[in-house]
Amino acid sequence: MNFELKILGSASATPTQGRHPTAQLLTAGGQQYLVDCGEGTQWRLLEHRLRPHHLRAIFISHLHGDHYFGVFGLLGTMHLQGRSQTLTIVGPPGLDEVLTTQMRVSGMQLAFGMEFVCVDTEQVAEVYADAHLTATTLPMRHRIPCAGYLFAEQPRRANLLKDLLPPGLRPAQLARLAQGHDLEPDDNLPAGLRHAAVSAPAPPSRRYAFCSDTLYTPDLATHIQGVDLLYHEATFLHDLHERAAQTHHSTARQAAELAQLAGAKRLLIGHFSSRYKALEPLLAEAQAVYPTAELAIEGLLVSL
Amino acid sequence: MNFELKILGSASATPTQGRHPTAQLLTAGGQQYLVDCGEGTQWRLLEHRLRPHHLRAIFISHLHGDHYFGVFGLLGTMHLQGRSQTLTIVGPPGLDEVLTTQMRVSGMQLAFGMEFVCVDTEQVAEVYADAHLTATTLPMRHRIPCAGYLFAEQPRRANLLKDLLPPGLRPAQLARLAQGHDLEPDDNLPAGLRHAAVSAPAPPSRRYAFCSDTLYTPDLATHIQGVDLLYHEATFLHDLHERAAQTHHSTARQAAELAQLAGAKRLLIGHFSSRYKALEPLLAEAQAVYPTAELAIEGLLVSL
Repeated sequence: MNFELKILGSASATPTQGRHPTAQLLTAGGQQYLVDCGEGTQWRLLEHRLRPHHLRAIFISHLHGDHYFGVFGLLGTMHLQGRSQTLTIVGPPGLDEVLTTQMRVSGMQLAFGMEFVCVDTEQVAEVYADAHLTATTLPMRHRIPCAGYLFAEQPRRANLLKDLLPPGLRPAQLARLAQGHDLEPDDNLPAGLRHAAVSAPAPPSRRYAFCSDTLYTPDLATHIQGVDLLYHEATFLHDLHERAAQTHHSTARQAAELAQLAGAKRLLIGHFSSRYKALEPLLAEAQAVYPTAELAIEGLLVSL
Repeated sequence: MNFELKILGSASATPTQGRHPTAQLLTAGGQQYLVDCGEGTQWRLLEHRLRPHHLRAIFISHLHGDHYFGVFGLLGTMHLQGRSQTLTIVGPPGLDEVLTTQMRVSGMQLAFGMEFVCVDTEQVAEVYADAHLTATTLPMRHRIPCAGYLFAEQPRRANLLKDLLPPGLRPAQLARLAQGHDLEPDDNLPAGLRHAAVSAPAPPSRRYAFCSDTLYTPDLATHIQGVDLLYHEATFLHDLHERAAQTHHSTARQAAELAQLAGAKRLLIGHFSSRYKALEPLLAEAQAVYPTAELAIEGLLVSL
């Protein structure tokens, strides 16, 4: 099954023509999850022919507007489009209050349920799980409570090695094997069959770490060792590292250093300050430390 | 002085590629006013090189998201851009609560003051006045409390007729005349001078009526007789007039009928349902009743 990330926004708080605030679409096991949702995210989904209807959950890192002001409109659109499936919204304290206040003053009654998961942004804790994915908070250090998220696939199924399968298995037997079970002795299989004897080991679950707005925090690396993909904010170039520290943001070099410390297999940097009209200097600075770093710019699709 | 309207959004609630939710920029006496502010309005301002910094007041018709979800981000951007001037926000009850709730949960303290004017959407009442403009509510009939606004220039100054001015007037005398005063007898003007004798009558104040989401309401015409410009929503074509009535919206034909009843000098129609990929049929329907009707589409600039 696919495990992929589409970048919908690369900007930081001040609006910039052609760049949009943070939003990412994660697809796992055919399910879609939104990671942060800046203003206008529903138009980004439209541009990429993605239907908000299909979203299973929305994860919000923190309550600065460039990370969540798109939620209001997105909920309204899902309602107008006839959504009935419950939507899970994961985020820091206060998100539920502002959303329910908005709906009350607007006289809006959504046609679908919402389940709020209020996270403790200082803990590393599993806050979401379904059949495809788990999400674990990563403590960011920002000006207000802020959580990153480590998304991990649920354990993957071992692939059967067709060349090793005995001939004449019944469809029901094949199905049981595919589900990971051993087969009991049977009239067409007198010795039975151990699942492990005819399958490759299950591929490891893929993991994606989303490190939203944060002061450079090397300790984070311990929680995301060997992650398949790391997104880390890189608001500034390193010559502005003091400004980064003052505003609780990171530099491109720091993002790359964290990727190195974590042994991340891939690195995306984003959340670029509007002062940078061209992004190449940010990329070059990250690549000086982590040579395969990439820019998390609008439209980028990363399949793991 | 200029009195002009720029259309920033033409769409109704469901997002449509290339169309944006309601937002209009009114300029009067060199001051800028925002009329409704759907999601993403700050990017529309950016596209037209308009600086939100300069906005004097924001008028919100009602609390459906496609008319106000852009306010959250716009306030944040004004803050980041260093605004210090107080901003007036005019709108129905609840707007102040949702904005202050959002700022509280976001830990945001704006660097500028906000003055909320809470309007009674069932009354025709002057709710705003400054040196350039007054705004009077127009009762809309929608699913939730909704106000239109009649914007009127403050009385304009009579233009001096230079050919009639006696020679040798001192600069101070000219200035008094320009301000509308008579001149007392003086050594270089023994008979004095009546202002009316050397000026054309003041041009009438220009007026713009913004009729946001509403059921067709012919009575509205009495409040906007002879208006220079009428914007009226036209969500549907008239074959869907029952759907329009159910949802408390109007059809293009009804918008044109209201313009006729009001003797409006110009008519713009907008707030088009996303079901209409092409807008010509809506325009044709309006023009069958009001031949000079125009589409209020993104980028349109109307100077009165």
